Amino acid sequence: MDGDGFEALLASTAARVEVRLAAILGGEGPLAGAPERVRAAMAHGALGGGKRLRPFLVIEAAALFGASAEDALDAAVALECVHCYSLVHDDLPAMDDDAMRRGKPTVHKAYDEATAILAGDALLTLAFGLIADSASLSLAARSTLVLMLARDAGAGGMVGGQALDLAAESRDLTEAEIATMQAMKTGALIAFACEAGPVVADADAADRQRLRRFGELVGLAFQLADDLLDETADATTLGKAAGKDRERGKKTLPALKGHDWTRQRLGDLVAAAEDELSVYGERGETLLAAARFVAHRLR
Amino acid sequence: MDGDGFEALLASTAARVEVRLAAILGGEGPLAGAPERVRAAMAHGALGGGKRLRPFLVIEAAALFGASAEDALDAAVALECVHCYSLVHDDLPAMDDDAMRRGKPTVHKAYDEATAILAGDALLTLAFGLIADSASLSLAARSTLVLMLARDAGAGGMVGGQALDLAAESRDLTEAEIATMQAMKTGALIAFACEAGPVVADADAADRQRLRRFGELVGLAFQLADDLLDETADATTLGKAAGKDRERGKKTLPALKGHDWTRQRLGDLVAAAEDELSVYGERGETLLAAARFVAHRLR
Repeated sequence: MDGDGFEALLASTAARVEVRLAAILGGEGPLAGAPERVRAAMAHGALGGGKRLRPFLVIEAAALFGASAEDALDAAVALECVHCYSLVHDDLPAMDDDAMRRGKPTVHKAYDEATAILAGDALLTLAFGLIADSASLSLAARSTLVLMLARDAGAGGMVGGQALDLAAESRDLTEAEIATMQAMKTGALIAFACEAGPVVADADAADRQRLRRFGELVGLAFQLADDLLDETADATTLGKAAGKDRERGKKTLPALKGHDWTRQRLGDLVAAAEDELSVYGERGETLLAAARFVAHRLR
Repeated sequence: MDGDGFEALLASTAARVEVRLAAILGGEGPLAGAPERVRAAMAHGALGGGKRLRPFLVIEAAALFGASAEDALDAAVALECVHCYSLVHDDLPAMDDDAMRRGKPTVHKAYDEATAILAGDALLTLAFGLIADSASLSLAARSTLVLMLARDAGAGGMVGGQALDLAAESRDLTEAEIATMQAMKTGALIAFACEAGPVVADADAADRQRLRRFGELVGLAFQLADDLLDETADATTLGKAAGKDRERGKKTLPALKGHDWTRQRLGDLVAAAEDELSVYGERGETLLAAARFVAHRLR
């Protein structure tokens, strides 16, 4: 699959995810009784932006084991809700204090801080309900996915990574500490996405472990590419402020080790991801295209 | 069961919940990889305080259908994590801006705002993981409890109620709006607690519905009694600031309708709760003692 073909597929899945998210956040189903303002703030934080990479990975990793996109959609949308809640909370004044996200005002700017905190809380809560209520998943899969998501999104995963990242503003992290922080902050949800695929399809433990390792490699590549873009791209391309890490004195691996080292490392990660999926032959091609896209993207 | 006997039983269950919470928040199990500061902030927000009424209701409602306290403990502790996360977030400067809770500094005072936001997020996330990982629950019960908790804690439940409560600071609510807000803000989690009992025990739908209605009545009584205490008790007794509702211009039912009306209404709610459980005869006595305690407590 070439780069253009991959981006078309990614955009098509993103549109599908958007339709489902819009239906839920428009007030159908679980949000029927939600007050208008908090529901609208949730929609503001979750709709109309992003490449929807994480749901794409869930859907494609499930497809590798024979599950349809429809079967994987609830888990995919749930994961995107968790990702979006984390952005809403990370943007708060007490955290990263960002005014713009995806080219529009952040939730606490468009609404207010209290509403942004509550909208984030509600998106996180909604995510678990979507998995538990998914008629396309076996009861075992629902239980496993809730447990995995709690692990990867919680204090030992994404939330813990954000805490380490905030701590890095007052103290320089070592290279190893940066790697740990990033594996938790962004790596955990991307690894969840890939591991969720075989779980949705009730595949076996070996497949789960293989997709988990693949997801961890993609997660590492994602963060490295993100940090490189923060140094090299401009705000218009990113849809958010660029160069913020350097300005805040946050050390990143591209800043510590240089751009050439980073590009070499990205190539190595893609090669390792290819090894991990080699057992699936051509069936793994879409996921590998995703790994290459993540490593070499320009925005 | 007399009042003293009930309070001894409540304290004994609270001690059991505390031991389990302390083990989890001390870093055993799901929090093994969590950064120290965020884990400690979670412990600060969840340990060493509160009557643990919600877990008590889960355990006693499960006991009514033959489940042991051990079988119900994961669901009970999970619910307490959700309750504690809501207090941590509600206390934030952008929300109720409280400096003291249960006689000690609130989490954002003891740590900082960013850590309090993250600790709350992590407690909420942890709760769902505890249910999904509970070996004492059937897969169907895990799935049902996660879905119920997402509904009752989310934008259509507790979070939505907090949003309505914040809105009430700038606009007087009608009596009906106050009732809706309170049913969501505090009623939903108390109703969850009671409904969770039969789910833990894999009891039938009629039992679930009966315990849900009982829980809704207890939830109404809880909030009325709380509002009455806010007007009549002092800060030392409450362990938090008293008279805050009036000071903030928030209308409560005791303020609108008077103390006599409120005491009459509390008696009516207890009578309705007794009717709801009459089918269980003497087996319902502990839950009814809980309803009376909630309605007539002095702190």
